[in-house]
Amino acid sequence: MKKLAICLALTLGAGHINPILAKEGDDKLMQQAQSLFKPIPATPPALRDGVTITPGKIALGKWLYFDPRLSRSWLISCNTCHNLALGGGDLQETSIGHGWAKGPRNAPTVLNAVFNVAQFWDGRASDLAAQAKGPVQAGVEMNNTPERVEDTLKSIPEYVQSFRKAFPNEANPVTFDNTAKAIEAFEATLLTPKSRFDQYLKGNSEALTETEKTGLKLFMDKGCSNCHNGVNVGGNSYHPFGVAKKPRPDVLPEKDKGRFAITKKASDEFVFRAPSLRNVALTPPYFHSGQVWNLNQAVDIMGSTQLGITLDSKDTASVVAFLKTLTGEQPKIEYPILPTHTGETPLPVTDIK
Amino acid sequence: MKKLAICLALTLGAGHINPILAKEGDDKLMQQAQSLFKPIPATPPALRDGVTITPGKIALGKWLYFDPRLSRSWLISCNTCHNLALGGGDLQETSIGHGWAKGPRNAPTVLNAVFNVAQFWDGRASDLAAQAKGPVQAGVEMNNTPERVEDTLKSIPEYVQSFRKAFPNEANPVTFDNTAKAIEAFEATLLTPKSRFDQYLKGNSEALTETEKTGLKLFMDKGCSNCHNGVNVGGNSYHPFGVAKKPRPDVLPEKDKGRFAITKKASDEFVFRAPSLRNVALTPPYFHSGQVWNLNQAVDIMGSTQLGITLDSKDTASVVAFLKTLTGEQPKIEYPILPTHTGETPLPVTDIK
Repeated sequence: MKKLAICLALTLGAGHINPILAKEGDDKLMQQAQSLFKPIPATPPALRDGVTITPGKIALGKWLYFDPRLSRSWLISCNTCHNLALGGGDLQETSIGHGWAKGPRNAPTVLNAVFNVAQFWDGRASDLAAQAKGPVQAGVEMNNTPERVEDTLKSIPEYVQSFRKAFPNEANPVTFDNTAKAIEAFEATLLTPKSRFDQYLKGNSEALTETEKTGLKLFMDKGCSNCHNGVNVGGNSYHPFGVAKKPRPDVLPEKDKGRFAITKKASDEFVFRAPSLRNVALTPPYFHSGQVWNLNQAVDIMGSTQLGITLDSKDTASVVAFLKTLTGEQPKIEYPILPTHTGETPLPVTDIK
Repeated sequence: MKKLAICLALTLGAGHINPILAKEGDDKLMQQAQSLFKPIPATPPALRDGVTITPGKIALGKWLYFDPRLSRSWLISCNTCHNLALGGGDLQETSIGHGWAKGPRNAPTVLNAVFNVAQFWDGRASDLAAQAKGPVQAGVEMNNTPERVEDTLKSIPEYVQSFRKAFPNEANPVTFDNTAKAIEAFEATLLTPKSRFDQYLKGNSEALTETEKTGLKLFMDKGCSNCHNGVNVGGNSYHPFGVAKKPRPDVLPEKDKGRFAITKKASDEFVFRAPSLRNVALTPPYFHSGQVWNLNQAVDIMGSTQLGITLDSKDTASVVAFLKTLTGEQPKIEYPILPTHTGETPLPVTDIK
């Protein structure tokens, strides 16, 4: 009986897959994918006009990124919420900051963020430099002021020297603006190339399994790629959350109206930037509210709220299998040895009574 | 007039420093130092009987050291309070932990800690493995339980594999005990050799300036080296804080009786392990209470409270100049990429209401 079943399966198998037709289907799938997505490059893209990424800026930016002394408490660095050991996020529903305060939204990954059209869930920062200034000053994040950041950095001779190298033509290089620009330069190098999907996009059909290809096909045919496309598989356009059906209230809390807070346009109520799906398997929990830890569940929610469809569990599993191929090579970073503060440095304040 | 002054200075100089006598004085100083101190080696020492430091344990320990998922909140790792970017400490008076709670004592540096006779300010942990278990469980630090740590690590296949490699002869290697042992192995590699003082100890008389040599001589002659000696320039013996004179109450708070809490011996009231002075310039604020940020001030306090002497400002400056030569080469660490959690992993709890 067992033998018969195997023979039958082999016979049916041989009958069902015509190698030539399969090859054509494969080619079409790859072409469709190549028309919608682009691989992550190995090196950073050009930034705004005239903004260069130099080794001096990157080196300074790396110090600043890991330095908790940019926060009022000396406890929170960029890397606290955008941890490069954890896919560039913090694995928190919404980030915890100064005084153990809970922030309003989930921390997006810093990895490949340079390819986003704008930063933050509502796109209120046009670039990474503008973004970097936000959390440093936010009361529930690093709780610092531009003046205090400048005083801190000016008090440390190695920082002053590093700013001079990074901004060689400026008379007064140690500024909050340049702090943000150096962080931007470092962050622009935080790319994750060579994912299996990118190998596929570059023509290696064997880089994806059959299930992953099925997932990719569903991702494009069902409409996921309407919002999640381009080099970051998302991150480049704004959409209302809940087009087809409103998500449950913990996933889309009433009080957070998204981009509306920035533009004040009624049409921007509950509008968010579609997040990049690069490395999505590494960066739960999902959505701006961070209420969904399970990627299958997140895909199902997207299906129902954005596309008005119910995916069966096999389709969901295929899409998730595809999404996991978006995990790229994580940046290799030598942990910095930060320069020592001096007697002039403003000391940490934790605001514990 | 200028010429005359220079000639006079040269003549006096030649008269005051007899090269042969100076050489003899130098040799004596070096011999005295060599009898009291030892250089930090480039490789870890042997641990307890039968405990080996293997590459597998070090690799696992490095992951664990940097993994905030050892804490209940997924926000605090060993590296939070023993930050390898900041001399292995946290630049806090006393550490801030779960719920932004302030711990009772200043975090000692992890660098070279393997050479301490025991761990914690009161020596209550006999080795680094025993130490590592403390903060993971402390309510005001990582606020976790051994069971939850084990559940977390068992739920992540790459961790399970790494424990198997690190503890190859054990049927059930993923344990809280082994977690601590792996962290110990990694921490044992966190050494800072090649300080200028160690170059001096190895016979290079020119590694220290005249002022630093004066500071070294004062350090030995005034009695600092009675408690701060050996490879770690401290860390190897217990002493009451306030032998000659009680420190001011913020520096020695009444409620913290030090080693007395462990031994219950009256003679252990306000007794603490003399801290290592290795890298002391990198690790303010000073003392178990962390109330003193200035190293000159810390030296003065030690003079008055422990030795019953008042150092003049020039002597203090010389001792501080010597102490700064104890800063060694900081460990170079590639920042780890941590393995991803799974659906089985207990999720973070921040205890925010």
